[in-house]
Amino acid sequence: MNYKIRSLREKMKLIDIDGMIVTNPVNIRYLTGTNAEGMFLITNKENVLITDARYIEEVNNNITIGDEIIVYDGISVSEDDYLGFFSECSKIGIEENYVTYAKYQNYVRKFRLKETVETNNLIENMRMIKDDDEISKIRKACEITDNCFRYLQDFIKVGMTEKEIALEIEKYFIKNGADGVAFETIVASGENSSKPHAVPTDRKIESKDIIVIDFGAKYKGYCSDMTRTIFVGEVDEETKNLYNFILGCQTRATSKIKDNAEGKLIAKSLESEFNNRNHTMIHALGHGVGLDVHEIPILSTRSCFTLKENMVVTNEPGIYLPGKLGIRIEDTILVNKMTSEVLTKSDKKLIVI
Amino acid sequence: MNYKIRSLREKMKLIDIDGMIVTNPVNIRYLTGTNAEGMFLITNKENVLITDARYIEEVNNNITIGDEIIVYDGISVSEDDYLGFFSECSKIGIEENYVTYAKYQNYVRKFRLKETVETNNLIENMRMIKDDDEISKIRKACEITDNCFRYLQDFIKVGMTEKEIALEIEKYFIKNGADGVAFETIVASGENSSKPHAVPTDRKIESKDIIVIDFGAKYKGYCSDMTRTIFVGEVDEETKNLYNFILGCQTRATSKIKDNAEGKLIAKSLESEFNNRNHTMIHALGHGVGLDVHEIPILSTRSCFTLKENMVVTNEPGIYLPGKLGIRIEDTILVNKMTSEVLTKSDKKLIVI
Repeated sequence: MNYKIRSLREKMKLIDIDGMIVTNPVNIRYLTGTNAEGMFLITNKENVLITDARYIEEVNNNITIGDEIIVYDGISVSEDDYLGFFSECSKIGIEENYVTYAKYQNYVRKFRLKETVETNNLIENMRMIKDDDEISKIRKACEITDNCFRYLQDFIKVGMTEKEIALEIEKYFIKNGADGVAFETIVASGENSSKPHAVPTDRKIESKDIIVIDFGAKYKGYCSDMTRTIFVGEVDEETKNLYNFILGCQTRATSKIKDNAEGKLIAKSLESEFNNRNHTMIHALGHGVGLDVHEIPILSTRSCFTLKENMVVTNEPGIYLPGKLGIRIEDTILVNKMTSEVLTKSDKKLIVI
Repeated sequence: MNYKIRSLREKMKLIDIDGMIVTNPVNIRYLTGTNAEGMFLITNKENVLITDARYIEEVNNNITIGDEIIVYDGISVSEDDYLGFFSECSKIGIEENYVTYAKYQNYVRKFRLKETVETNNLIENMRMIKDDDEISKIRKACEITDNCFRYLQDFIKVGMTEKEIALEIEKYFIKNGADGVAFETIVASGENSSKPHAVPTDRKIESKDIIVIDFGAKYKGYCSDMTRTIFVGEVDEETKNLYNFILGCQTRATSKIKDNAEGKLIAKSLESEFNNRNHTMIHALGHGVGLDVHEIPILSTRSCFTLKENMVVTNEPGIYLPGKLGIRIEDTILVNKMTSEVLTKSDKKLIVI
């Protein structure tokens, strides 16, 4: 059995469940190494992946005998088979943060479940700590992102639209070995930069623009996430000061990221810095990065996560003055024992193109 | 109040609920015309949209007084406010196919809900029937897709990779006024074509290849969905026969699509045609298209939907011989009273490039 499934089975014992239904495809990928929609059932007898014709070829190419996973095409699984899977299990764990209310009701009926137990992100908690293979994939995704940022500084010209730049990023990623983008790229210029969730528009880059670029590549399923804010032609003193304030905040936060640090305290100290200057932190300071670009831990004043060695998290303070401008600086960071390693290595000094 | 919310309120009365919690962002967009994550609450007093700082600017730009929607930034909503929203409602509808089991439990606590009612895709059912504005957006998305297909027939050359072609499609869409792709483009060449869910790879197009291209644009939020299977250089007789068989199936299915036709019967008659030739239909015949690229109705032998005027659905029979080849032909189709209109108008005769 692969070590991830083995480790999950040990954790299941600790919370006193003897079966589990996994349907989040990202968790299925984590546990089985394959990209398939369906149901992964962990029973006290076996590991069963029920998928459908669309994925059977992909699954058979990726799952090895060593994984100890029995694969079924859903069409060949009868109602009686469903009743049998958990017939000797007493407490079945569910992914309560993924499974819909309707699906939950359906599982209870279909498997005739005796007792269901909320597993409180059991698999997502395992996913927080990355192994060497996962780190090397994230590292590669960050490297491609860094190279792309270097390329962009030459590429971006006055008159191009935000959409054109976003598309060029995707093209660069794909040409350079990535699976594609890790999430929808944000290229927010001029007053659009004040929207933290801006979608690229047909707005053309102008001289004196500020441009927030929030982007990341996916490499063999693993994500990177980086934001840089750059300036076109020139930048006024007030904006320069604001930029350096955010950069200072981001640098100080990075220096606090290490094994055993409390995410909440790091976010709170940044919040004080913001408040002291009459600014507000309108979003979290950061989040975990892995198979999902947004995963736990969350680093914010409202979440409680202790950072641990081999977590990978972002650090992304931002300031937004509606209708005027926005500035955000973000890195993807590997948590180490005594310190941290910034995996996205692009320059953060104020860049004017 | 806008007509969609008014119409929803009437349907709520019919199923005897006097409140509803809407969190599916696509449903929020449908009802409010804005692109925001959060909660849209319909109570017996008012319509309330609770979102967060990331979306406030977007929301304020899109919601008009005529919509009669009260907008809150979630951060300013207290626990008491939550208790108040549904205090005078007795039965609250939920989106049981969207809300997770954990969120459901949370809503029950947070709003102190007396009784929740599964709404059985109430809003998704409304979304099946498109209004003139929605149809004109889907029509435009289809037109961009058709133009792109014409462009591709010149663009695709031996030696290009599947990924390059997929990216060129996205680039074309964006250059030509689309929001972007409606879903991840499939470009599956050679033996990859036998995977109905293929992801574009670095495989280079070769002479004698078959290429399945499944793609669609999104225009002002609305999707198109089209598949064409084309051939490089030459095509053998056996494959030509198979192509013409699928084309015949697709054409016959289209001729049956009209107001009051049963999706299941159309799919069943195609299944018989497949089975008569010892082939298997491994996926549904089609699905609704709108704000989501996959929405109800589903046209398959296992679903029961009666087609109605102004539904927009796909018709996409496909055949897959693992390790050898795949052929799929798909159109986006508007259901009319006595007939249907194929909105994706690209040629379906066998194309050799």
